[in-house]
Amino acid sequence: MTRQEALDILLAAKKDKGLSFVDLAKTLARDKVWVAAALMGQATLSAAEARQLAEVLGTSPEVTAPLQEPPHKGALDTTVPVDPLIYRFHEITQVYGTAMKAVIHEMFGDGIMSAIDFEIDIQKQEDPKGDRVVVTYSGKFLPYRKW
Amino acid sequence: MTRQEALDILLAAKKDKGLSFVDLAKTLARDKVWVAAALMGQATLSAAEARQLAEVLGTSPEVTAPLQEPPHKGALDTTVPVDPLIYRFHEITQVYGTAMKAVIHEMFGDGIMSAIDFEIDIQKQEDPKGDRVVVTYSGKFLPYRKW
Amino acid sequence: MTRQEALDILLAAKKDKGLSFVDLAKTLARDKVWVAAALMGQATLSAAEARQLAEVLGTSPEVTAPLQEPPHKGALDTTVPVDPLIYRFHEITQVYGTAMKAVIHEMFGDGIMSAIDFEIDIQKQEDPKGDRVVVTYSGKFLPYRKW
Amino acid sequence: MTRQEALDILLAAKKDKGLSFVDLAKTLARDKVWVAAALMGQATLSAAEARQLAEVLGTSPEVTAPLQEPPHKGALDTTVPVDPLIYRFHEITQVYGTAMKAVIHEMFGDGIMSAIDFEIDIQKQEDPKGDRVVVTYSGKFLPYRKW
Amino acid sequence: MTRQEALDILLAAKKDKGLSFVDLAKTLARDKVWVAAALMGQATLSAAEARQLAEVLGTSPEVTAPLQEPPHKGALDTTVPVDPLIYRFHEITQVYGTAMKAVIHEMFGDGIMSAIDFEIDIQKQEDPKGDRVVVTYSGKFLPYRKW
Amino acid sequence: MTRQEALDILLAAKKDKGLSFVDLAKTLARDKVWVAAALMGQATLSAAEARQLAEVLGTSPEVTAPLQEPPHKGALDTTVPVDPLIYRFHEITQVYGTAMKAVIHEMFGDGIMSAIDFEIDIQKQEDPKGDRVVVTYSGKFLPYRKW
Amino acid sequence: MTRQEALDILLAAKKDKGLSFVDLAKTLARDKVWVAAALMGQATLSAAEARQLAEVLGTSPEVTAPLQEPPHKGALDTTVPVDPLIYRFHEITQVYGTAMKAVIHEMFGDGIMSAIDFEIDIQKQEDPKGDRVVVTYSGKFLPYRKW
Amino acid sequence: MTRQEALDILLAAKKDKGLSFVDLAKTLARDKVWVAAALMGQATLSAAEARQLAEVLGTSPEVTAPLQEPPHKGALDTTVPVDPLIYRFHEITQVYGTAMKAVIHEMFGDGIMSAIDFEIDIQKQEDPKGDRVVVTYSGKFLPYRKW
Amino acid sequence: MTRQEALDILLAAKKDKGLSFVDLAKTLARDKVWVAAALMGQATLSAAEARQLAEVLGTSPEVTAPLQEPPHKGALDTTVPVDPLIYRFHEITQVYGTAMKAVIHEMFGDGIMSAIDFEIDIQKQEDPKGDRVVVTYSGKFLPYRKW
Amino acid sequence: MTRQEALDILLAAKKDKGLSFVDLAKTLARDKVWVAAALMGQATLSAAEARQLAEVLGTSPEVTAPLQEPPHKGALDTTVPVDPLIYRFHEITQVYGTAMKAVIHEMFGDGIMSAIDFEIDIQKQEDPKGDRVVVTYSGKFLPYRKW
Repeated sequence: MTRQEALDILLAAKKDKGLSFVDLAKTLARDKVWVAAALMGQATLSAAEARQLAEVLGTSPEVTAPLQEPPHKGALDTTVPVDPLIYRFHEITQVYGTAMKAVIHEMFGDGIMSAIDFEIDIQKQEDPKGDRVVVTYSGKFLPYRKW
Repeated sequence: MTRQEALDILLAAKKDKGLSFVDLAKTLARDKVWVAAALMGQATLSAAEARQLAEVLGTSPEVTAPLQEPPHKGALDTTVPVDPLIYRFHEITQVYGTAMKAVIHEMFGDGIMSAIDFEIDIQKQEDPKGDRVVVTYSGKFLPYRKW
Repeated sequence: MTRQEALDILLAAKKDKGLSFVDLAKTLARDKVWVAAALMGQATLSAAEARQLAEVLGTSPEVTAPLQEPPHKGALDTTVPVDPLIYRFHEITQVYGTAMKAVIHEMFGDGIMSAIDFEIDIQKQEDPKGDRVVVTYSGKFLPYRKW
Repeated sequence: MTRQEALDILLAAKKDKGLSFVDLAKTLARDKVWVAAALMGQATLSAAEARQLAEVLGTSPEVTAPLQEPPHKGALDTTVPVDPLIYRFHEITQVYGTAMKAVIHEMFGDGIMSAIDFEIDIQKQEDPKGDRVVVTYSGKFLPYRKW
Repeated sequence: MTRQEALDILLAAKKDKGLSFVDLAKTLARDKVWVAAALMGQATLSAAEARQLAEVLGTSPEVTAPLQEPPHKGALDTTVPVDPLIYRFHEITQVYGTAMKAVIHEMFGDGIMSAIDFEIDIQKQEDPKGDRVVVTYSGKFLPYRKW
Repeated sequence: MTRQEALDILLAAKKDKGLSFVDLAKTLARDKVWVAAALMGQATLSAAEARQLAEVLGTSPEVTAPLQEPPHKGALDTTVPVDPLIYRFHEITQVYGTAMKAVIHEMFGDGIMSAIDFEIDIQKQEDPKGDRVVVTYSGKFLPYRKW
Repeated sequence: MTRQEALDILLAAKKDKGLSFVDLAKTLARDKVWVAAALMGQATLSAAEARQLAEVLGTSPEVTAPLQEPPHKGALDTTVPVDPLIYRFHEITQVYGTAMKAVIHEMFGDGIMSAIDFEIDIQKQEDPKGDRVVVTYSGKFLPYRKW
Repeated sequence: MTRQEALDILLAAKKDKGLSFVDLAKTLARDKVWVAAALMGQATLSAAEARQLAEVLGTSPEVTAPLQEPPHKGALDTTVPVDPLIYRFHEITQVYGTAMKAVIHEMFGDGIMSAIDFEIDIQKQEDPKGDRVVVTYSGKFLPYRKW
Repeated sequence: MTRQEALDILLAAKKDKGLSFVDLAKTLARDKVWVAAALMGQATLSAAEARQLAEVLGTSPEVTAPLQEPPHKGALDTTVPVDPLIYRFHEITQVYGTAMKAVIHEMFGDGIMSAIDFEIDIQKQEDPKGDRVVVTYSGKFLPYRKW
Repeated sequence: MTRQEALDILLAAKKDKGLSFVDLAKTLARDKVWVAAALMGQATLSAAEARQLAEVLGTSPEVTAPLQEPPHKGALDTTVPVDPLIYRFHEITQVYGTAMKAVIHEMFGDGIMSAIDFEIDIQKQEDPKGDRVVVTYSGKFLPYRKW
């Protein structure tokens, strides 16, 4: 069974059971975004996590093996994403990337925000003028090594 | 005077005076990231903001006119950014974009996070295992209109 | 059943029954362009809309579930569209995009026309020198937030 | 004098004199969008139009010659536009292009909307929930010739 | 039945029966190039044309329906064609495109040769130094509309 | 003096003197399209041709040397041309390329139309429904060598 | 049967019978490189050649028909080849292309080496420091036609 | 002095003195193609070679220093070359690359033809049907190392 | 059986048997990286190596034939790799490529590090601040041939 | 003074003084590859390092300021590098990237080799069959964070 076949089964079961990413996150004791990333094929599950997922979704245990392999990561079909929601994240990088670089260098020195030792949080902030999507990235600062 | 010439003068003055984006943000009563975006040529200043900036940086008032025009936005030279710090933001979209889309749709329905009615905050979170860069995006949720 | 399979069934039924987008628009109480977009897989239907569509087209109710998921949007296979009719829309952006930007900024200030809080109307304007296609875009103006 | 040099002079004079595209459109008895396109280097002026423009903007008559040459048209630097306002027009083609094609074929048969025998109108529609940008394209329908 | 399936059946029948594009053109009272374009999936047939084609090629009448839909046009797999015969047409545009533009503007003014109200003729011109391929494009001149 | 500098001088002189490509073609006893190609930097002139051109345009003889070098050919800035007139030639290849290939193979066998032993003619065909641009390509058929 | 299916059968039979391109070249009285090109789907066989090939490889005569059609030529999947052996030919063009152009123009005048009236020879040149691959291209010089 | 400035001086002197690549090759006791590659900025000269070149071309000795630095190699502006002569080399790789790979593997095993331990020869082969360009590549075969 | 089918069988057997690349490397008396490359379809096995692999993995001997053919090499789906681990190797080339070129030229003269007479070693270096991945490339220096 | 201007001065001085990267590395007590990266504009120097560099190279102290700013990193002009030496590093990633990923995951689990907490060493290994370039990458292993 390939990872994609396993994911298709799990996503179909999630829809049939009417479970949300928040529900699955509770089961796995992980964040809803990480769980969604795992179900999009972008993260590696432990044997225990895979088993819990299969159980709560009521799928065959066969799906658990491919989920434990480190995936070939990268979920976009095109260099510039075409879906409008995902494109907005590209646009933020395109418009504000140099500003974020300048500010981070001023605050931290030469280095980067890790995308590996990294997590994402997504919240809904209610607002009478229209609710807001609040996305928080937290990545370890990695200073450039000199040698 | 073109916008780029004005920005070059302002950025050189900022460096000479040893002022940070935080300093300028206080002067303008705006956030440091917005000020950095303005100095990277990605935002439009009001006449008052342009004048305050020229004053605090001690530059000729000639720089203020081009800053008040809406710029041609987009600061990257290449489709996929090559600078490692900026690339990490692209990688986050590449790896986690479909997960963020799935979670946002589950929380908000079909629509997007605006990149226009939008703001960015950047903080340093001290951590004994290595300080963390915390970047927060806050964008108004825009539901797809049906007609 | 995937969205594409559902759409193939619905489009085939539409052709068999000889129904136009205008006919379906009347059934759904929506505009013909929105209905076409939905049948091209670019919009999310409510449960009621999906059921009405399946009924009027006489298809199995199984098609209704995938239509209610927010789709991965973006319908072109290539960055620059190759179909001549669709290319003309690209050419208009290519030739007149900077002029439209200059005029919109002059009329509204710095911001954009939303493509989300947005609708399209298409009319035939009869003309002895050749009928005209009249396409109207209406999008909410979104001013750039300063923060 | 190249067209670009002439346009730079004219645009600087327009800004100095505080004239809008609407003002220039009245002078030339043309639409504001066409005038903006001409000033973005995307249209050919007649000798009379070029002279009127130079006069109202108070520039040397030298600028009038290059404006009368058919330009090399196409104003975008990149295949996919990066400026958010212009990108939204690309996104509309990307998301709704196939729907517009389907509707136009249903209404007119096989053919295209001309982008040459073509005009654009832009209006502000006031709306308490936020003003709307209304862009209307009107192009002659050209049926595919069979031979 | 998809258009591609119908075309595969028709092209196989054409080969089996040893009929040329010239033969089919006589049957349909159309030009051989237009018939070839139709069989490459780039043109829309009338009901009568589709029926005549199916009859002369002895195929099931089922093939006639998809041929009457306006196709998604564009027959090349890559932006720059790789087949040497087709590439030469690209090369002509690449090398002589600006010269043809200059000459057409001098002869006709600012506008284009339509590729829609358009036809192609291909002839063999015998020549002792080697026969020549003579390809003639005839397209209506469309002057740019000013508005 | 580079070729581009020489061409800029010659094209400016052509405009000042009000000479057309047809006029220059008569001087050089060549076709107007070839002369336009030469002035777009896409063909090599003989010493006599270069001298005649400099004389009729009244320019310094210095321009004649670079015109006699075989140029680096290819006049488009982008892979897919953006100018609408030139794009239509690309679109013809995109839409009709496979049909022309099929017809040429049926008429001539496996081989190509040369773009080197090749000429272009452009004529205006008057037509009450709108004048037509008639472009004729004539290239030697080159059969594929087998060895 | 498609050309690809025919080629798969022939290449499998070649491997099973342990025949080399040199062996097949002897059978067909053609060069080994041309035979390899034919088996890679890049050349058209005569009826006799196709029959000889099917006979020596012991395959069904059904494979002979598709081999006699002019193929859609071009065998690379990507613009820049990724296979290291094939990439080296790209690199030679990239590094030495302008030098070869300069030398050919100096020796022959303005024109090209035909890739159609063209043949390739490949030999092994034994050398104590390491055998050498000797690839010889022979193409007819085609001078640019002036008209 | 940059390499490009040195090369511009040397190429201008070559043209003024009417010297061919063959002439310079005799001076340097190297092949004409290598000399052309050096003058296109694609090879490194020894101090003696640089001095000989400057002397025979009568240029200042200042040009000799940059020629002795290993250049950043690669002479094409675009991924797919647009100049027709250079494109033909690309087309040969595109059409015959897989055939050459198959033949070289059959003759030599798994490995490549070096493009570094490599030389090119170009000859004119007179032929009553049209002279032929004969280009010979000779590169050391490098077998893939297994470890 | 294609190479991909054979590799899928072998990789599945490797996972079922719980064997590592180190285990297989011992069996074949080769390095773990080379074995991994072979199992990713990027290297040619000898008959003996293929047989040993099939035996230790307990698969049908049928898999051994395709492994002995030189593969079409190149394992990435996109020009710029999207998987973060593989991207880091691209980034190293992007950021440090010119520095490595400068240092290698200073140490060795004009030439390259072979990627054919080449091997890779990967080690884990334990480090209290976090273990390190140590990747060593060893390639024969190939000086540019002058001729 | 821009960073590029400072680097041009420093590189020219390095050449005039005949100093190697090894010499400069000794002065700065850093590795020769890091120093080369700094002189290629890919690393940030401390004030002390910049001053030492200016002193040993005898340049004006004005060059030291731009070297202390974090640069916009990324040194290649094209996505796929064209210089053969640098291309080989791309080819290694292209051919061996998936194998290195598989081995690193087997040795370390899911994560990456950092390209930030990272260093490069380059050595010459003498070998009678031809000296070898030995490039060693050492990067901290960063495990994927789960949250």
